[in-house]
Amino acid sequence: MPVREFAVIGLGRFGRAVATTLYDMGFSVLGVDVDEEIVQEMVPHATHVVAADATDEEVLRSLGLRNFDVVVVAIGDVEASVLVTLMLKEIGVRRVVAKAVSEHHGRVLQRIGADRVVFPERDMGTRVAQRMVSAHFLDYIEVSPDVSVVELQAGGDMVGKSLEQLRLRNRFRVTVIAIRRGDDVVVSPGASAVIEARDVVVVIGSNADIRRMQEELGI
Amino acid sequence: MPVREFAVIGLGRFGRAVATTLYDMGFSVLGVDVDEEIVQEMVPHATHVVAADATDEEVLRSLGLRNFDVVVVAIGDVEASVLVTLMLKEIGVRRVVAKAVSEHHGRVLQRIGADRVVFPERDMGTRVAQRMVSAHFLDYIEVSPDVSVVELQAGGDMVGKSLEQLRLRNRFRVTVIAIRRGDDVVVSPGASAVIEARDVVVVIGSNADIRRMQEELGI
Ligand SMILES: Nc1ncnc2c1ncn2[C@@H]1O[C@H](COP(=O)(O)OP(=O)(O)OP(=O)(O)O)[C@@H](O)[C@H]1O
Ligand SMILES: Nc1ncnc2c1ncn2[C@@H]1O[C@H](COP(=O)(O)OP(=O)(O)OP(=O)(O)O)[C@@H](O)[C@H]1O
Ligand SMILES: [Ca+2]
Ligand SMILES: [Ca+2]
Ligand SMILES: [Ca+2]
Ligand SMILES: [Ca+2]
Repeated sequence: MPVREFAVIGLGRFGRAVATTLYDMGFSVLGVDVDEEIVQEMVPHATHVVAADATDEEVLRSLGLRNFDVVVVAIGDVEASVLVTLMLKEIGVRRVVAKAVSEHHGRVLQRIGADRVVFPERDMGTRVAQRMVSAHFLDYIEVSPDVSVVELQAGGDMVGKSLEQLRLRNRFRVTVIAIRRGDDVVVSPGASAVIEARDVVVVIGSNADIRRMQEELGI
Repeated sequence: MPVREFAVIGLGRFGRAVATTLYDMGFSVLGVDVDEEIVQEMVPHATHVVAADATDEEVLRSLGLRNFDVVVVAIGDVEASVLVTLMLKEIGVRRVVAKAVSEHHGRVLQRIGADRVVFPERDMGTRVAQRMVSAHFLDYIEVSPDVSVVELQAGGDMVGKSLEQLRLRNRFRVTVIAIRRGDDVVVSPGASAVIEARDVVVVIGSNADIRRMQEELGI
């Protein structure tokens, strides 16, 4: 882990979570927000917190951000976010990660040199929608556009059967990676492993194959 | 997939992504927002869109939400979000998923009967922070508090070696689930599989073991 010094500008809900997570992991985190009250609340969750308007170039230069490894811009206002990102790249900050609130905002940020653009609300919206469609769909990783790792609540015709009986690999080309029961996780479970009602099952396969498995087993 | 009819109240960035994803998957989606302009923009991305103030009980009742499978409340204003959630449960909506903007907001929503509370900004903040710490950390699923599936950009001493040479299972108790090269994904790769520089590697293991592997291999 080569990255050590972080700054987060804009301590809304997103920026706050970024700063707090990094700080809890033991990294040095500078937090900046124009709102005094928010800055006060963040004192226990960051190395330093500064109440300042980041669109003020003097202020921004005075923070010494040039030596930071990553600066995160998490301001919701498009104009301010773009201006701050632009100035950070001018100052010579190596890596700027900026939050976008729309596709257009994202394109502008990329254009002016943001090294990474994130869309927290959009991405979580997609994730929550995916999960809602199947009550059994807990989480997933898109490994490629076609293939996903999916965490499922056990259900339907899966319950009470062994992996040998279920033959998921033959029938659906879906591989069971792990089974969680309570706090215990069995990685690469054997053919004799039986799925119980409260188990969480982690599988890998193509999106179409996983969907077909869910439909056929009624998960 | 038993759930068919969705409504999303509040079409900010999060609500919009929820609605659009569900609609693109072929489900029926009713979108509601007090802002006429947002409602116009959403016409192509939902089955029906209504410009209305959801805190108005008459309005809410007139939408016939009782028969919907899931209603998502994605209003950022705490007072409005709580009032709407409360009225939806009174009307008899089966499943209400509500967005919270703070821990306190989340507790209130749960108390008044929200069936699921989501924290999009907080959760994405955590995810983005995790990813930033290691440039190689792409995505993950927490299978249990201890065990995760992690998607990593190949790097460090991993590159150019076969799984047999790397002995990840013996050294770190980490299992390689899949290797992605371009658009191709190899699931459960054999011992002779060689990791290349641009590969994406999906592993499962305890968080401590994965971290130790990253440190020792310089990923
Ligand atoms: N010029 C500025 N300098 C420093 N901080 C700023 C500036 N402008 C806005 N902020 C701060 O950025 C934070 C995030 O901004 P805002 O609430 O508008 O965005 P948001 O997208 O709704 O945030 P989130 O969804 O993460 O809560 C706020 O706490 C705000 O005070
Ligand atoms: N009473 C209401 N009835 C219907 N829609 C509402 C009501 N109050 C707010 N909204 C809409 O809800 C949407 C989300 O609200 P707001 O922008 O305050 O929240 P937010 O948390 O910043 O959203 P996001 O982060 O998802 O963009 C807005 O489009 C707003 O117009
Ligand atoms: Ca906002
Ligand atoms: Ca937001
Ligand atoms: Ca991915
Ligand atoms: Ca999980």
